Amino acid sequence: METVSERLFKQEEADLLLDIMVNRRDVRGNRFLERPVEDEKISQILFAAVNAPSVGFSQPWEFVLVKNKEIRQQIKDSFNQENEKASILFKDAKQKEYNSLKLEGIFEAPLNIAIFYSDNEKPVLGQTSMPEVGLYSVVCAIQNMWLMARALNIGMGWVSIIDPVKVKQILKAPEKNKLVGYFCLGYTSQFLKQPELEVLKWETRKQITELIFNDTY
Amino acid sequence: METVSERLFKQEEADLLLDIMVNRRDVRGNRFLERPVEDEKISQILFAAVNAPSVGFSQPWEFVLVKNKEIRQQIKDSFNQENEKASILFKDAKQKEYNSLKLEGIFEAPLNIAIFYSDNEKPVLGQTSMPEVGLYSVVCAIQNMWLMARALNIGMGWVSIIDPVKVKQILKAPEKNKLVGYFCLGYTSQFLKQPELEVLKWETRKQITELIFNDTY
Repeated sequence: METVSERLFKQEEADLLLDIMVNRRDVRGNRFLERPVEDEKISQILFAAVNAPSVGFSQPWEFVLVKNKEIRQQIKDSFNQENEKASILFKDAKQKEYNSLKLEGIFEAPLNIAIFYSDNEKPVLGQTSMPEVGLYSVVCAIQNMWLMARALNIGMGWVSIIDPVKVKQILKAPEKNKLVGYFCLGYTSQFLKQPELEVLKWETRKQITELIFNDTY
Repeated sequence: METVSERLFKQEEADLLLDIMVNRRDVRGNRFLERPVEDEKISQILFAAVNAPSVGFSQPWEFVLVKNKEIRQQIKDSFNQENEKASILFKDAKQKEYNSLKLEGIFEAPLNIAIFYSDNEKPVLGQTSMPEVGLYSVVCAIQNMWLMARALNIGMGWVSIIDPVKVKQILKAPEKNKLVGYFCLGYTSQFLKQPELEVLKWETRKQITELIFNDTY
């Protein structure tokens, strides 16, 4: 078998990749449609995930596809508790705005996916000085999924306002696993052109020149 | 301004995205060419980065472009120290194989980029229950860069066998910052069809069916 790839991409292909990236949004419950996501599309999204880079080729990712309503209710309960605690950290007008935002789509989305890091429990090449790179491999898989979902016109939203230890218990994950992210997926009524928090001026977009340093800070 | 995107992607466009993903490789010093990466290409890679998702639209990423040889020497010294410590964790034939692998391209690549997480130091929407999602936002940016680099036929390699605290000091990063990853970028003599560690049978590819669970483990 030939081990070298002859694939060279053209600028138009890089431009299409950018188009997918800039059109990818975090989608919440106010935009999901009930229409189920076809198994064939779910397979494509998961295939994108497992083609992400992973430290030492450890592939430390595991995916729990959550459709059961009782389980989702338990996840939603954790969201409600954590969201109440979060709300009081924002003050005055910001708190009012926070409370008006829809920040998850646990029930509205036809599919939820919990993504775990599964620890190898032996030395992994490349993970010996910065153990967190195992978790980071899982995040690379998540970003691949998010882009593939968007290219299939499927919305994906990250629900981070949950207690990761409780969610791990609810999903009966092995002790050595760590929840990296919990996601809602489904077709959407629309994709916004810009991030909703940018449209609402919750935060402003940073200038790229402020973020780049040469040789040292 | 219209806030809704009308962009729908076709299956062929999703297929191209997958093609970029499966052809992306971790590139090390044995494959980099000296040929410099054009500024225009670096801009495209960094633009992909800042179009990644970030928790609460916090955009907590900062990029240090390292070309200076003395600075690279200090990074390389940290790699050498950490790599020596790592080597002894692998035994017998595995250690011999470990020692034969080229695991960085700090000098061979025309460009190094250190990527930091810059802490917001105030509550961030979505980051209140799982503070690590700030770091994960930076990893999403890294994966965008890796894909864009590949689409531009530029190799990128992650150097994780370094002391992140030392690298932070070498690059004079602010106290509140955390090194997420250190990368080598450049044109390459070739891209392998499969991950090198898969070709060498250092680790085997996992079956996707082993990684997927329904509702709970």
